[in-house]
Amino acid sequence: VIAHIVVLTWHPGVTPEQVAEVNAVLGRLPAEIPELLSYSFGANLRLREPGGDYAVCAVVEPEHLARYLDHPAHRDVVERVLGPLVAKRAAAQLTLEPQLASGLVKSWPGTGS
Amino acid sequence: VIAHIVVLTWHPGVTPEQVAEVNAVLGRLPAEIPELLSYSFGANLRLREPGGDYAVCAVVEPEHLARYLDHPAHRDVVERVLGPLVAKRAAAQLTLEPQLASGLVKSWPGTGS
Repeated sequence: VIAHIVVLTWHPGVTPEQVAEVNAVLGRLPAEIPELLSYSFGANLRLREPGGDYAVCAVVEPEHLARYLDHPAHRDVVERVLGPLVAKRAAAQLTLEPQLASGLVKSWPGTGS
Repeated sequence: VIAHIVVLTWHPGVTPEQVAEVNAVLGRLPAEIPELLSYSFGANLRLREPGGDYAVCAVVEPEHLARYLDHPAHRDVVERVLGPLVAKRAAAQLTLEPQLASGLVKSWPGTGS
C-alpha cells in the first residue's frame, strides 16, 4: 500500500471560498473512486513554518494509482478547480509503514493487501 | 491525528549511497521518538512523473509535532545528513482521514486519540 502525497502552493489571491470549493470537490472523490483506500486532504494546518498551502494524501495499492489519477472525476477536479489556483506542486509516492497500512486493510475488507 | 508530509528534491549528483544513508538514519528515529505513531519515508517510487526525489510522512498527534521536529535525533539528521543533499523542500501538515487514523490508534495502545 502506498501514499501518493502532494503539497500545493497557491497563486497569490486565492480566497478561502476557493479553498472551500477544493475541499468540497475532493471530498466527493472517494465515493466515485473505490480504489482510494484512504483520502486525506486540506489546507496546510501550518503547525510549523515554512510550508505549502494545501496537501493531499491518497492511499492506494500501487497498481491502482493510475485508476485514481486518471479517473475522469479526478482529472476534472485537477483541470477545472485546482489548475487555476496552483502556482507550485510537489508530489511523490512512498510505501506506507506496514503498521499504518495493515490497520487500513483491516478496515476495508475486499481491498486485498 | 495528523500527517506531517515532506517532499524533497535533491541537489544534482546525490548518489544512491547517500540516499541509503538517509533511509538508515531516518529508520532509527521511531525508536528514539515515541511520539511518532507511524513513520514512512523513502525515495519517490516514481509511479507517475513529475515529482520530487524523496518523501517523508510522519504521523503524530498535533500537540506532539514539535517533539518530533525538535527532537535532537531528528535535528541531527536534518542538519548533518539531509541538509547537504536538499535543493528544494515542500512540507505541510494535514488531518488524517479518520478511518486511517483509527486503525493506527488501535494498533498503538497508550497513544490516546
